[in-house]
Amino acid sequence: MQTLQVDLGERSYPIYIGADILARPDLLTSHIAGRQVAIVTNETVAPLYLRALESVLDGYVLTSVVLPDGEAFKTWETLQKIFDAMLAARHDRRTTVIALGGGVIGDMAGFAAACYQRGVNFIQVPTTLLSQVDSSVGGKTGINHPLGKNMIGAFYQPQAVLIDTASLSTLPARELSAGLAEVIKYGLICDADFLAWLEENMAALRSLDRAALTVAIERSCAAKARVVGADERESGVRATLNLGHTFGHAIETHQGYGVWLHGEAVAAGTVMALEMSRRLGWIGQAERDRAIRLFQAAGLPVVPPSDMTPDDFLQHMAVDKKVLDGRLRLVLLRHLGEAVVTGDYPREILHATLAADYAALVDQLKN
Amino acid sequence: MQTLQVDLGERSYPIYIGADILARPDLLTSHIAGRQVAIVTNETVAPLYLRALESVLDGYVLTSVVLPDGEAFKTWETLQKIFDAMLAARHDRRTTVIALGGGVIGDMAGFAAACYQRGVNFIQVPTTLLSQVDSSVGGKTGINHPLGKNMIGAFYQPQAVLIDTASLSTLPARELSAGLAEVIKYGLICDADFLAWLEENMAALRSLDRAALTVAIERSCAAKARVVGADERESGVRATLNLGHTFGHAIETHQGYGVWLHGEAVAAGTVMALEMSRRLGWIGQAERDRAIRLFQAAGLPVVPPSDMTPDDFLQHMAVDKKVLDGRLRLVLLRHLGEAVVTGDYPREILHATLAADYAALVDQLKN
Repeated sequence: MQTLQVDLGERSYPIYIGADILARPDLLTSHIAGRQVAIVTNETVAPLYLRALESVLDGYVLTSVVLPDGEAFKTWETLQKIFDAMLAARHDRRTTVIALGGGVIGDMAGFAAACYQRGVNFIQVPTTLLSQVDSSVGGKTGINHPLGKNMIGAFYQPQAVLIDTASLSTLPARELSAGLAEVIKYGLICDADFLAWLEENMAALRSLDRAALTVAIERSCAAKARVVGADERESGVRATLNLGHTFGHAIETHQGYGVWLHGEAVAAGTVMALEMSRRLGWIGQAERDRAIRLFQAAGLPVVPPSDMTPDDFLQHMAVDKKVLDGRLRLVLLRHLGEAVVTGDYPREILHATLAADYAALVDQLKN
Repeated sequence: MQTLQVDLGERSYPIYIGADILARPDLLTSHIAGRQVAIVTNETVAPLYLRALESVLDGYVLTSVVLPDGEAFKTWETLQKIFDAMLAARHDRRTTVIALGGGVIGDMAGFAAACYQRGVNFIQVPTTLLSQVDSSVGGKTGINHPLGKNMIGAFYQPQAVLIDTASLSTLPARELSAGLAEVIKYGLICDADFLAWLEENMAALRSLDRAALTVAIERSCAAKARVVGADERESGVRATLNLGHTFGHAIETHQGYGVWLHGEAVAAGTVMALEMSRRLGWIGQAERDRAIRLFQAAGLPVVPPSDMTPDDFLQHMAVDKKVLDGRLRLVLLRHLGEAVVTGDYPREILHATLAADYAALVDQLKN
């Protein structure tokens, strides 16, 4: 088992990474203060792992809340089900909430913990690759609003993150690919060596090679922990973690939450950010195409939805959380391995990027 | 104008108290970082003060959200109206939310600020006595849940609190009395001299004597700031501010939010806490009756609703935020001017307190 640390002063916490660590009660119980635990999970994950987690927590007063699965349910109405269950079972302020599931469960359970009686403890037990390498670390919690993704939420750090790599054995291939989008992201924004490693090991990762997955998770979590430790509330460098997300959130919101997986939208959105970086003269065509090939090798879409117009993008991007004083800031690449956040670009380059023919662009890669 | 300070490290902020300070733009603008401001108020306060506040903020990009008035609307549905308006007007992370109104507006606007894009700045401009002496200071924000008052919320501190005593001239007498319940509370829990001052000045306060009101507000805010500075997240002494609130919340929840004003429920609830303190042998009957007479002089109810049974109370109190590991902790008085928080009392004394005949108890005061 590996242990990483997220350094945030009194809000610091460990990330445990290993196989079958859910079977080790001590890792969980050392981070539970009271006697009450509320487990939040969904209909897909519950049949696989809920019973095992409950039996590890034998002796605690347990409430398990099983929510419908999917981004479309990351809403206030679903969040309310958590509050209803916790209040009905009379959970008090010493309760610990455990998020057992993917990114949607982690975001909602974390936000529920942030708001329940003005804040109780919580622990992340991410079961998808995407949540293990990204959303479970760093304290971003929240729900969607019809006008924008993750618009309502809190920065609220967990007591610990337990990443059991064994849980990936039950993950559908499409979800594994979605997680790889965020793994590739770390290479693109801050670690060119990792990018080369991913090119060599993509086949192993997709065939669930345990050693390769562990390396990818550790390296991703280490990058995330470093960035979050430097900038918890995203006043600077943390925004680079959103490479491809501004374009990607527009895709997710426009298509309807859950139609594209988050990682899929991030992949196509990152291709747009790469293309814009190329049009600004910051990266070359060869670098852009190298990144696109890596997303393709990971089984990810690299072309935005054909029914989305530049105006569709602009409308959704106007409420992005990186907009400041009317100016849309974007995460772009100076080089592969170096990201910048900037609102200082010619508007016509953004417009040309939104209007580009990505299908044709990807087509020429086949030659 | 008086300035008090709430000392919370990097989250410290000033409380300005004076007449017509809303007409001083500098007090507001020095606490607004960006160019966007969202004013949250209600249908009662808007016709009185919204135009004046908007004109003071000439030059900012303004969105005003006017909500229905009353505790019955302190719900997620109403909160959603704030998010809808802010997102439709494309408010970004540098927005400042201003709460213009009483405790319900302050709690909801503050919680909206805590959650909007995971947190934006906010300023409290309380217009009722209750919000000026209590709820606007200390960062407690939130909404009600059908199963319990203030169950969903956040500790989230404002950038500043602006208390314009002139706004009390438009306050209905019933609301003024409700605010006096919290003023009397400070005397009971930590300031016996203030209790004597209140007995002498109650008539002046109820006739809106400006000098007397200013003294009462300053002394209340100073007590609140001291307690919050010592215990921001209510792990200890801050809980004493909830004298009468556990009984009072049960009354509010049982009667339906808004039927009893919060201050009215606190007054009757405090009488119950006094009676229980007497039954424990901590205060004498003369002390209890002195406090009851002060609530009566303030125009407040001192008898709980006749239709509430001990079981009604127990059921609502079981979800109180002061319950820990199944034990209901109560704020009780050792003496007038000294409160304690304790879960260590004989259950039968609580039951006897709930079953006491308060109408008869108050009746004998007339003799």
